[in-house]
Amino acid sequence: MKNRPVQIGIVQMSCEAEKSLNLEKAALQIRHLARQGAQIICLQELFATPYFCFEENPAYFDLAEPIPGPSTEYFQALARETQTVLIVSLFEHRAPGLYHNTTAVLNADGQYLGKYRKTHIPDDPGFYEKYYFTPGDLGYRIFETAYAKIGVLICWDQWYPEAARLTALHGAEILFYPTAIGWEPDETEAVNQEQYQAWQLIQRSHAVANGIPVVAVNRVGLEAGTLFWGGSFVSNAFGSVVYQASHTQEVSYVFPLDLAQSEQYRRIWPFLRDRRIDTYAPLTQRYLGD
Amino acid sequence: MKNRPVQIGIVQMSCEAEKSLNLEKAALQIRHLARQGAQIICLQELFATPYFCFEENPAYFDLAEPIPGPSTEYFQALARETQTVLIVSLFEHRAPGLYHNTTAVLNADGQYLGKYRKTHIPDDPGFYEKYYFTPGDLGYRIFETAYAKIGVLICWDQWYPEAARLTALHGAEILFYPTAIGWEPDETEAVNQEQYQAWQLIQRSHAVANGIPVVAVNRVGLEAGTLFWGGSFVSNAFGSVVYQASHTQEVSYVFPLDLAQSEQYRRIWPFLRDRRIDTYAPLTQRYLGD
Repeated sequence: MKNRPVQIGIVQMSCEAEKSLNLEKAALQIRHLARQGAQIICLQELFATPYFCFEENPAYFDLAEPIPGPSTEYFQALARETQTVLIVSLFEHRAPGLYHNTTAVLNADGQYLGKYRKTHIPDDPGFYEKYYFTPGDLGYRIFETAYAKIGVLICWDQWYPEAARLTALHGAEILFYPTAIGWEPDETEAVNQEQYQAWQLIQRSHAVANGIPVVAVNRVGLEAGTLFWGGSFVSNAFGSVVYQASHTQEVSYVFPLDLAQSEQYRRIWPFLRDRRIDTYAPLTQRYLGD
Repeated sequence: MKNRPVQIGIVQMSCEAEKSLNLEKAALQIRHLARQGAQIICLQELFATPYFCFEENPAYFDLAEPIPGPSTEYFQALARETQTVLIVSLFEHRAPGLYHNTTAVLNADGQYLGKYRKTHIPDDPGFYEKYYFTPGDLGYRIFETAYAKIGVLICWDQWYPEAARLTALHGAEILFYPTAIGWEPDETEAVNQEQYQAWQLIQRSHAVANGIPVVAVNRVGLEAGTLFWGGSFVSNAFGSVVYQASHTQEVSYVFPLDLAQSEQYRRIWPFLRDRRIDTYAPLTQRYLGD
């Protein structure tokens, strides 16, 4: 089998209050990664703003913008300049009073390839996302970029094997997760470690189940009572962590993946061959016990 | 929340050529574990015979028996004697020329509660299971035992998040995987470790995704060119390995689980609440890319 190398760029950053500053910060890192050979660069979830979902406040809807729109265009120019594919997570204003948590994908020539809207929306103390984000209605999809066919899911989607499977079945060669997750600063180290491990584990399992690499890019730093835990990582197509970022530092990093590994792993462990699709229809049920 | 302790017994063994010897060996360990307080005891996949699927040989169909049948009755008596729930993996002769890889579940009073037939059937060099085992047609199910509502899946099923999810949605409080998996003896240590890690990882991920503990019981020892890797383990409801057995030794072990943890984990991480069941219908498709 011939190698199919692709260079993945990760930007793990802390966020400023001003959107323009975050865009500049991201741009600086994108140019830096492009000079190091990055071909597909993923930014973390909602990198353009502070994590505003820590409270329910209607004023924060002002942070949203159309996609495509000003920020999309800003990064389209940057994609063209650096010849990189960019995965750009933004707060989408779709219509009056209708908002989504959305990721735009831009091709290496600056073309806007389309968007994915976060399907699974969390809601728990400090993460009041159901207030802000209408559940996505674009389904699971892939984007045929200059360097690979990529699937994009967003944060809470990462806990759902269904979402990863469906994106893989569409032909994704890499699964990207822009995400924003963190610890309560006053929890014990044991609880924190178990939460991080579970978070990394479930995403590595999507790599194993589907035979494709997974790239998770997380926010870092303390914001409004949450210590975003960084720890962005790359899993190969068989669930091995081949790169992991710091829990406390901003990071920009280029990591090579060989997409030919998927054919190799799937040949040895042919899980897709043996799916019992005749037995899966009840997955569309909420619960089967009662 | 009140604790709901249950004592899990694991029997990880190597197998003799004679079925009667393997039954006696299992019975010895079951009595031993019962004296230590075990309440639900899981035996590994096809523990009653050598792993005959290393080649395609019609003579091996003679190893199959009806379920219920002689071996089921043998363990029913033992369940009654020891007041333990027994999870008993056997080669099932269902009708002339029709065979399954099946697990019987016996209640602590000796009652036969029913059986589960392996749904996902592997086939690769040294594991020619498609020759022997007709794919299961009983669907995913749970068994209401004296100590817990348990779900049972078998070996290759473990790679499929769909199977774990459906069993959990039926109300399983613990997921058991009798299994038989091993290494090629001449592979590198790096490959072996990656394979074991992926195997453990995917099963731990079912615990995370569904908020229930997972118990995997694997065969150990060298048989016909495969080094069965033991390494039976228990994962708590959030994917942490709380017990792991040796890769080379026979093991019988009692491990306590607190089933109240599931309510606790699912309350903190309410994945079941947010499943987007309106988007999962395409999971019944083989592939969506072409």
